[in-house]
Amino acid sequence: MINYRKGLTDRPEYDVVERAWKIKVNANECNMNLPPLVEERVMARLSHIAFNRYPNEEEDLLKENIAKCFALNKKNVLIGGGSSEIIEKLFYAFGGEGKKIVYPTPSFSMYRIYAYAAEAVGVPAPLNEEYTFDADKFIETVNGEKANLAVLCNPNNPTGGAVDIDIIEKIAQNIDCPFLVDEAYMEFYGKSAATLLKKYPKLLIARTFSKAYGLAAARVGYLLGDEKIISEVKKAYMPYSMNVLSLVTADVVYQMKSEYEPRIAMMIAERKRIAAELAKIGGVKVYPSETNFLLIRVGEGDALNDALVRHNIGVRSFGNAKNLENCLRISVGLREENDEVLNTIKLFFEGRD
Amino acid sequence: MINYRKGLTDRPEYDVVERAWKIKVNANECNMNLPPLVEERVMARLSHIAFNRYPNEEEDLLKENIAKCFALNKKNVLIGGGSSEIIEKLFYAFGGEGKKIVYPTPSFSMYRIYAYAAEAVGVPAPLNEEYTFDADKFIETVNGEKANLAVLCNPNNPTGGAVDIDIIEKIAQNIDCPFLVDEAYMEFYGKSAATLLKKYPKLLIARTFSKAYGLAAARVGYLLGDEKIISEVKKAYMPYSMNVLSLVTADVVYQMKSEYEPRIAMMIAERKRIAAELAKIGGVKVYPSETNFLLIRVGEGDALNDALVRHNIGVRSFGNAKNLENCLRISVGLREENDEVLNTIKLFFEGRD
Repeated sequence: MINYRKGLTDRPEYDVVERAWKIKVNANECNMNLPPLVEERVMARLSHIAFNRYPNEEEDLLKENIAKCFALNKKNVLIGGGSSEIIEKLFYAFGGEGKKIVYPTPSFSMYRIYAYAAEAVGVPAPLNEEYTFDADKFIETVNGEKANLAVLCNPNNPTGGAVDIDIIEKIAQNIDCPFLVDEAYMEFYGKSAATLLKKYPKLLIARTFSKAYGLAAARVGYLLGDEKIISEVKKAYMPYSMNVLSLVTADVVYQMKSEYEPRIAMMIAERKRIAAELAKIGGVKVYPSETNFLLIRVGEGDALNDALVRHNIGVRSFGNAKNLENCLRISVGLREENDEVLNTIKLFFEGRD
Repeated sequence: MINYRKGLTDRPEYDVVERAWKIKVNANECNMNLPPLVEERVMARLSHIAFNRYPNEEEDLLKENIAKCFALNKKNVLIGGGSSEIIEKLFYAFGGEGKKIVYPTPSFSMYRIYAYAAEAVGVPAPLNEEYTFDADKFIETVNGEKANLAVLCNPNNPTGGAVDIDIIEKIAQNIDCPFLVDEAYMEFYGKSAATLLKKYPKLLIARTFSKAYGLAAARVGYLLGDEKIISEVKKAYMPYSMNVLSLVTADVVYQMKSEYEPRIAMMIAERKRIAAELAKIGGVKVYPSETNFLLIRVGEGDALNDALVRHNIGVRSFGNAKNLENCLRISVGLREENDEVLNTIKLFFEGRD
């Protein structure tokens, strides 16, 4: 008699192992490893870890450093395994049978999975045509559905667009449930809703070290919010959920944030350059982006993706995913990589591939 | 309106930060950091990580290395954040409303918490007086309660005792639900139920890198079992749950397991020595142990603990915990540390403290 938890066997299996692309621009990663000065400090910190000891004050130290930058208290900060785990736990904390969680669509595809895993009802609120966001419609959905949690990815993945902070404020003012703003790509946009935290105690902000700070391998993210909510969501975590190696690595990176400014500026400049170049190609529609990736739509997405794969370039192709038909998401890589991607797309449309 | 998941707010908050003991023998940690040869290789591997990339094949590589040692397939192995997270997820996978999970008591105190977090019914099966284990009674409880999962910690924490593998086999033969043997301390005992895996497809074995392999900081453990069960339990994990730093560290340690043999032998020898010394002290009852710790019972546990605290020695005192009244659990430390602990206890009982 093997009797699994209700709903578990229906969940998908994930296999994250993928081929070694020559150019990997499919996961919105930063295409550079640690800056040299940061690397030196990270390795020095790692070499001083007591590997034999359970985590102790390392999480608190990182929380304090983060809190300071936002003029908050460490009790306003929760650390998790990437913003993905934080969102997973938040969905869990506000989930359960019959609880509704509203998020835009298309947006981060895991929201649907996290809602399902939380035994909650995921309620997708469609973006407008052209992927613009209608705040009034969103507010209406959240209130009409009596949602238990509202989520907005800003800037939005995979469409790339962003809403202004006054739109976020308008939502916070007009809904009554906790409201998560997933700011995974904030550093490429430059505007954060964190300034609204003190005014709106039900507002929560998720951030990650995986994108602009190039630490996807370490799995570290954080949640900012009201002390009471943070302490309740924390109860969804068992003790010692974070490992010391990732915590000290993130701590060094956080303290050396300024080292990342030039490369973030460079990634933004590259995004603009690629967007302009792609827009010149007949048959390619480029959506506005405030992130480190671009969403494009073409006539035959699969055919373009096949051409890129043949050139050993990995992008995120959405195939016939609803509302993303024939769309491809291309992360900003190194300049040389971006040139090769552009060239491959040009050749494809010129029929010379 | 802030509406948390049912049961969440009733959960305890964990604060794992503790004082910097002069001698820390309260968490069954290995009291030595990485062996020098291992450290060198770990640091070399860490320095080659692509921090900017999401985890890819690192988890599979570790699974393959582990599987090989047990003559299993990588599909029989699941990697998690310490055996604690593995047990948490296993309880989740076999939990849910009304599902019963049977485990001995006293045993690992987190079983109760994991059962609660899994929205399951935790059913403690009491050990005998003197903390011996009655397999027939356990089988009766598991079958009588129609348990959905049975758990045995072998050797048992915090009592230290172990049961023979034929007892494990007897249980596996006579119950019908999945059966987890938590072998967190197996390396100090030397006998594993892993040999039974092929014969009993509902048997599962949890192991950790945190104890004998001194990697508590990295949070890595693994589960061995039937391919089908492993793949279902894996669905309780979201993608990228493991970070690359911990995975490569554990991989190096696993490949260099032989480096740990002398220190494991030394810890066992120290445990025997301390047990004999403690037994000589009037007023101290020492329970048999096959682990890297000893459980003792004294007349006034709190008073002895206070004395140890005054000497800046951290042990695990059970205060008036049920069935563990006046018990203290003391991990095996370095020889000098153990001498100081012994001495402090002797002085206390001689009234010279």
